Amino acid sequence: MTRLKLDISTSLDGYIAGPDASLQDPLGKGGERLHEWVVGLEGFRKAHGMEGGDSASPDNEIVAEATRDIGAYVMGRKMFSGGSGPWESDPNADAWWGDNPPFHVPVFILTHHEREPVEKAGGTTFTFVTDGFESALEQALAAAGDKDVAIAGGAEAAQQALRAGVVEDVTLHLAPVLLGSGASLFDGVGTDLTLRLTNVLEGPHATHLEYAVER
Amino acid sequence: MTRLKLDISTSLDGYIAGPDASLQDPLGKGGERLHEWVVGLEGFRKAHGMEGGDSASPDNEIVAEATRDIGAYVMGRKMFSGGSGPWESDPNADAWWGDNPPFHVPVFILTHHEREPVEKAGGTTFTFVTDGFESALEQALAAAGDKDVAIAGGAEAAQQALRAGVVEDVTLHLAPVLLGSGASLFDGVGTDLTLRLTNVLEGPHATHLEYAVER
Repeated sequence: MTRLKLDISTSLDGYIAGPDASLQDPLGKGGERLHEWVVGLEGFRKAHGMEGGDSASPDNEIVAEATRDIGAYVMGRKMFSGGSGPWESDPNADAWWGDNPPFHVPVFILTHHEREPVEKAGGTTFTFVTDGFESALEQALAAAGDKDVAIAGGAEAAQQALRAGVVEDVTLHLAPVLLGSGASLFDGVGTDLTLRLTNVLEGPHATHLEYAVER
Repeated sequence: MTRLKLDISTSLDGYIAGPDASLQDPLGKGGERLHEWVVGLEGFRKAHGMEGGDSASPDNEIVAEATRDIGAYVMGRKMFSGGSGPWESDPNADAWWGDNPPFHVPVFILTHHEREPVEKAGGTTFTFVTDGFESALEQALAAAGDKDVAIAGGAEAAQQALRAGVVEDVTLHLAPVLLGSGASLFDGVGTDLTLRLTNVLEGPHATHLEYAVER
């Protein structure tokens, strides 16, 4: 049974991106600190075509779990462009994700700019969706079949998904840092959402909290 | 060795009180949801002179731990008045805490209004401090001797303590609710504070995260 998942790193003060986020700096000021827990992990490095990394950390299990049974992703434009700036006119703008991106399934990019789909090695396809979040989600659900659909990020896509009330599982990687301002994960979501904790994993650099959304 | 501790409930969106907090409604709109995890516990009820409650929950241990080795508290005026409204002219305004308040040590109340100290049964004294947070903290440290000092709350006292950079241990009781707006625990604290997770306890209604502040 397909579930819609959101898996995202957040600061202790509730920000999923720092201030002044842009296409050039998609995580905003200080936002890279949110992901310090993950970038040194063997599981993360391997998925991104790099060798080495910490293989003993329990955080590796979290990384593996985040991609297990995912049949398609919905991704925001800033995360896709990854800091490479405006990419509409640059056919190599997805170079940031490499020749063999870590998704290995269809990825639907939220954007206002039409572009032909891009097929990569290893099963990843990038499809550009210009008619909104719901359309992207619909296409991702169709592509995923019986598997799950994940909101890949970044901040705006995560907020859109929560506001739309469609997310069923939320995993927060709580990084012990403060960003002071930026994009709040639950901004505009309202106060009716209740989450039921289903699992906690304590990593050396972040606490991983898994919640099921209750309606 | 005395440590300065802050132990507080926070929503998933980072609020320690809801919007429109006042002397009459110190937790703000929806703020009572932050404490749903604690009010039904045997440990909490017993400390507040009530019988019954859930004795099997691991949360009881958290409540016991929060008061262990505390030699004095600093408390904000709204928390002291507890929704009973302005109390400066009402000699019974501390009635909300009962004849035998759950502190059993000196409590220093931050206020702009002078008032004679109040001595209660069971070792609790309420001392009213009109010359600011640092003075209250100094008096609490002196009263605590070798024991620890805790910021009892509410939201403003917690924020003041964090902004002053004096808190050494932070325990967050992360309630799986959203308040939408209100008082953010880390508001105005800046981004230099880093916290090191020292313990996690998963309760049925909240996740308890213990951090040591790193300087």
